[in-house]
Amino acid sequence: MEKAIAEIAARLGNDSISIDDEVLFSHGFSEWSNHNADRLPVAVVFPSNTEAVAQIVKICKMYRIPLIPYSGGSSVEGGISAPYGGFSIDFVNMNKIVELHREDMDVVVQPAVSWMDLNEKISESGLFFPMDPGPTAQIGGMVGTNCSGTNAVRYGTMRDWVLNLTVVLSDGSVVKTRRRPRKSSAGYNLNGLFVGSEGTLGIVTEITLKLAPVPEATAVAVVSFQSMRSAAQAAVAVVRKGIPINCVEILDDVQMSVINRVGNTDRLWEEAPTLFFKFAGSEGIVKESIAEVSKIIKDHGGSDFQFSKDEKSQKQLWSARKEALWSMLSLRTSGTGVWSTDVAVPLSRVADLIETCKKDLDETGLFGGMVGHVGDGNFHETILFDGEDEKAKVEKCVHDMVENAIDMDGTCTVRLNPFKIEDFMLTNWTS
Amino acid sequence: MEKAIAEIAARLGNDSISIDDEVLFSHGFSEWSNHNADRLPVAVVFPSNTEAVAQIVKICKMYRIPLIPYSGGSSVEGGISAPYGGFSIDFVNMNKIVELHREDMDVVVQPAVSWMDLNEKISESGLFFPMDPGPTAQIGGMVGTNCSGTNAVRYGTMRDWVLNLTVVLSDGSVVKTRRRPRKSSAGYNLNGLFVGSEGTLGIVTEITLKLAPVPEATAVAVVSFQSMRSAAQAAVAVVRKGIPINCVEILDDVQMSVINRVGNTDRLWEEAPTLFFKFAGSEGIVKESIAEVSKIIKDHGGSDFQFSKDEKSQKQLWSARKEALWSMLSLRTSGTGVWSTDVAVPLSRVADLIETCKKDLDETGLFGGMVGHVGDGNFHETILFDGEDEKAKVEKCVHDMVENAIDMDGTCTVRLNPFKIEDFMLTNWTS
Repeated sequence: MEKAIAEIAARLGNDSISIDDEVLFSHGFSEWSNHNADRLPVAVVFPSNTEAVAQIVKICKMYRIPLIPYSGGSSVEGGISAPYGGFSIDFVNMNKIVELHREDMDVVVQPAVSWMDLNEKISESGLFFPMDPGPTAQIGGMVGTNCSGTNAVRYGTMRDWVLNLTVVLSDGSVVKTRRRPRKSSAGYNLNGLFVGSEGTLGIVTEITLKLAPVPEATAVAVVSFQSMRSAAQAAVAVVRKGIPINCVEILDDVQMSVINRVGNTDRLWEEAPTLFFKFAGSEGIVKESIAEVSKIIKDHGGSDFQFSKDEKSQKQLWSARKEALWSMLSLRTSGTGVWSTDVAVPLSRVADLIETCKKDLDETGLFGGMVGHVGDGNFHETILFDGEDEKAKVEKCVHDMVENAIDMDGTCTVRLNPFKIEDFMLTNWTS
Repeated sequence: MEKAIAEIAARLGNDSISIDDEVLFSHGFSEWSNHNADRLPVAVVFPSNTEAVAQIVKICKMYRIPLIPYSGGSSVEGGISAPYGGFSIDFVNMNKIVELHREDMDVVVQPAVSWMDLNEKISESGLFFPMDPGPTAQIGGMVGTNCSGTNAVRYGTMRDWVLNLTVVLSDGSVVKTRRRPRKSSAGYNLNGLFVGSEGTLGIVTEITLKLAPVPEATAVAVVSFQSMRSAAQAAVAVVRKGIPINCVEILDDVQMSVINRVGNTDRLWEEAPTLFFKFAGSEGIVKESIAEVSKIIKDHGGSDFQFSKDEKSQKQLWSARKEALWSMLSLRTSGTGVWSTDVAVPLSRVADLIETCKKDLDETGLFGGMVGHVGDGNFHETILFDGEDEKAKVEKCVHDMVENAIDMDGTCTVRLNPFKIEDFMLTNWTS
């Protein structure tokens, strides 16, 4: 390890590597995550271009040192962990928007570009990048995790938006997956393989992303229901009807009370199972879509639509939804434990699973809430806990959730036991 | 080879394998394709389930015999070719719709299910499978080629619609790529890797496909332009505006004259560069989208929209577009040669490339036309020829087209020389 550190410092400069304790801690441990390994990285390297990454990889390969790419560090599922030590590669010096191609509707970026900054910087082009994960996520980690977020119903997931990748492979060679056309079936789909591979197949150093036109009009609508089951059923019915919504999110009573208590929006919301809808398109299309969704909501016993009328209150409301996890954490009075889950099931089972999980969650008596990208059959629970007794309760609740999802022909990305992280390969990417 | 044939016959029955000359010819040669190898397969096998495929693969692995999966046989790019001999695997006995899950909006099928049959059989569910390649294509080959077709602007390509695959690997082991939820980032994206791999990574024996809701209303609109350039520019402008069209197709004057001469539609169309638009959604959304597209068309000097008013004439018109290639072939008076191309470029270069290629095509003086999924930057030329002189002209034209596309940061799937097909791996799939 020491030899590798010295070689990297000699080749790339002393500033390119750190073994400072605080730096190691901040790259190997996250208080947002319950999936922290019991080790930290041995060093953190700071490459400034693809060639530097290739050199680092070659040196680390020689000394058999694991590499863990690091961009936004917002992973809640152990993405930044260094369970076998090794070096964290922080892309902070690779945070440039390389080229914007307005006419082609694409943009070339480095891994440490924040998706929110990107959208701000390109806003006058009339284009935007439609994935929307946590606010602090960066493109590198979004590639590694195949990120999605609330817009996935309309825009799909990260792999649908990556046109090409520049990747450093484990032998230090550099490949570019493909060229820039929006559609291609030539050769193997390497984009699709690298996206979501969590850095285990190579280290992504440059990304060309498709962009979408900014819609002319948007609207956010909120509607509450008697039960999580009827809310979930209504959401699935909207998706099955094929109405062009941007997203539909489900929040339980606890999450709604968190939004009220944090108080970032200009009104109080009913603390009941709730659907948030986002509509986008031309004025006419938004109006038409709202009318159709209203009909379905009424059939499922939903309340009248509450609209966010202006752009400012739409943003407030949507950011309240987006920051639900952070808001919960900010409200905790004690305790260091938080467990987040991520399951997805076929559409016909969403209501069943949500109902069961909500019941199990309530029975723990702990502070925990449920939010979900319900249009995709995907949702999350976040539960806070304190001490071993509470942890055992959460553990049972999470295990049951995952087993139920799998019994329903579903899937999960939560690890069942955060402290026994499975074998990692060479590298491990984080968002 | 003989030993392998005997073993397969012994294990799976005499009906499961054929060495009949006509059968070999029909599986190794296609008159639609200019990419025929100079050999035929040595035998054709007819498995009736995944287990039989696994047995065939194990036997062929032992004797090092190449395998070429075969479903619809509609490939124009050598997909069915057996350049090294070997066995063609025909899935004709694996043509069942295994399970339709209405509520989950998915369906499990075998490889030799025709996409058109599928849509007919599931039509009363209110769902459909939105890829639309050539009319005779089957799901197995559509997986192998990552098929798309005219609906790609709205619905994406095959890889966006595959939920999971059952695949026989080259050692005869059977894997299932994932479970049935509509969204998952758990594990590597094996679907995305197998889809489009042309059978070189494994043989797909069962496919779970996402389905989409059948839109409430549809409309087809046709508009003609002074030049291919202005037609292409108008199409790109519509896509950049983000108007929710199902598809926009470009056809040149030759293709329009082919539609008139074949006479399958109830009117004569102007023989000029033409855009076909398809709209789908609720009544209101279709109306709104048409209004917005009309504005853009006017700005680009297009004619007034011609509508296909009823469902029957919409179908006629759209099938005229879909059968453009076959129609051209049916009109040829002599000659056996046809060369089809497939290129894609970034959106800003579409008009440039189309203009250049149209000029080059006209200069050959041969009977050839141009159609394209222009909203994706992707288009095709089909040129008929007779004898070596004409072939040389086509060859130059196609080479120039591909080189121009690549210079424009584009891509191609046409092989530059159909008779020197590159190294194939174990298997090679066709649609």
